[in-house]
Amino acid sequence: MNIGPYSFEEYCDLVKGFHGYPAPGVLIGGYMVAAAQRQLPPGTLYDAVCETRSCLPDAIQLLTLCSVGNGWLRVLPFGRYALSLYDKYTGEGWRIFVDPEKLEAWPEIKTWFFKLKPKKEQDTPKLFREIEAAGDSICSLEPIQMQPQFLVRRSTGTIALCPSCKEAYPAADGCLCRACQGEAPYVAAVSQPSLD
Amino acid sequence: MNIGPYSFEEYCDLVKGFHGYPAPGVLIGGYMVAAAQRQLPPGTLYDAVCETRSCLPDAIQLLTLCSVGNGWLRVLPFGRYALSLYDKYTGEGWRIFVDPEKLEAWPEIKTWFFKLKPKKEQDTPKLFREIEAAGDSICSLEPIQMQPQFLVRRSTGTIALCPSCKEAYPAADGCLCRACQGEAPYVAAVSQPSLD
Repeated sequence: MNIGPYSFEEYCDLVKGFHGYPAPGVLIGGYMVAAAQRQLPPGTLYDAVCETRSCLPDAIQLLTLCSVGNGWLRVLPFGRYALSLYDKYTGEGWRIFVDPEKLEAWPEIKTWFFKLKPKKEQDTPKLFREIEAAGDSICSLEPIQMQPQFLVRRSTGTIALCPSCKEAYPAADGCLCRACQGEAPYVAAVSQPSLD
Repeated sequence: MNIGPYSFEEYCDLVKGFHGYPAPGVLIGGYMVAAAQRQLPPGTLYDAVCETRSCLPDAIQLLTLCSVGNGWLRVLPFGRYALSLYDKYTGEGWRIFVDPEKLEAWPEIKTWFFKLKPKKEQDTPKLFREIEAAGDSICSLEPIQMQPQFLVRRSTGTIALCPSCKEAYPAADGCLCRACQGEAPYVAAVSQPSLD
C-alpha cells in the first residue's frame, strides 16, 4: 500500500537515508501521517504534535514540512503512538493513533508494538509484510481542538551574552545561560581554571 | 563555500524541502555540522547533542543520520547556538558554537544573530552572502567528554494499556498515561460523557 506519494519500497529507502534503518515505527508512522493529511481541507497550513519521541517524529518530518527545527512539530514525551495535524490558526485538526483493538488481526505487529517477544525472536520479514498489508487500518482517527496556548508562536525574546561562557543565550533564562546554571551535559573540562 | 558534500545552493534547496525555507540558522548550522564531522576520526559512530531547539536540529538531521526519532540526536533547550558530535561508546567528541567575538567581521550575521534590528529591516541578500562567505569561520570548536548518563540508551520499558484512553503507553509513567494525567494538549471533547 502506498505511503503518501511513495510506494512502500520508495518510502523504506527514504527512511533508511534519514533514520538509518527502516524502523517499523517510521513505516507505520508514514501511513498515519498520510491518513491525517487526507482529513485536512486542501491548502490548510498545519502544525503537528507527536505524542512520542520514538520513531514517529521522523515520519512527520519526512512527509510534511513540520520539523523540530522550524517549530511546526512539537514532540510531547507521552509514549503514546499518536500524532495530530491541525490548522495552525484555528487549532482544529485530526489525531490518529494505533488502536490496540485493531491489532488483533495482525499478530506480528501486535508482538512488536507491545514488545511481547525479545526483538531477536520477532519475525521481521513477516512484520514488514503485515505493516504494508495493514496500512492505516490498525489506526483510528478523531477530530481534535488544540488548547489556545499551542497556537501561539514561542519567541526566544532578547538575546544576551552569558557572563560565564561568553556565548549568546535567551535573556529570559536568567543571569546565566541554562548550561552554565548546571544543565550542561559535558564533563567539566580538566583544564578549567580552579576557583583558588 | 561548500557544506559537506553540497554546494551552498544545493544545500539551500535541501533545507527548503525539509524546513520550509532557507533559514539562516539552518545554513550556518550546515557549516557547523560539517566542521564537527571533520574533527571525528573516520568511521566513528557518533551521536549528537543540539543546545537549541531553533533551526540547528534540522541541520544535524539533514547532514547526519542522527535524528529526533531514532534518538541519536538529543535537543537540549538552552538556546545556545551550539552542537556536539561524540563517539557513542566513549562519549569523546567535539562541540562547535557560534563565537560572538568572531561575528565582528560580519555585521549582517551579527545583526541577525543578536536580533539587533526587526527582521523586515535586515538585509536578507547581504545576510546570505555573508553566511556563504563566512562559512565556519564564525565558530569555535572545543573537545568535549559527555557525562556517562548520556551514553546509556533510554528504553521505554514495559508497555501497558491506559485504563482511561485504552491506548498503549510506558508502564513506568504510572497508572494512567501522561496525557490522561492531564498533559494532553487538546481541549476536552464536548461529546465526552459528564461525571454525573
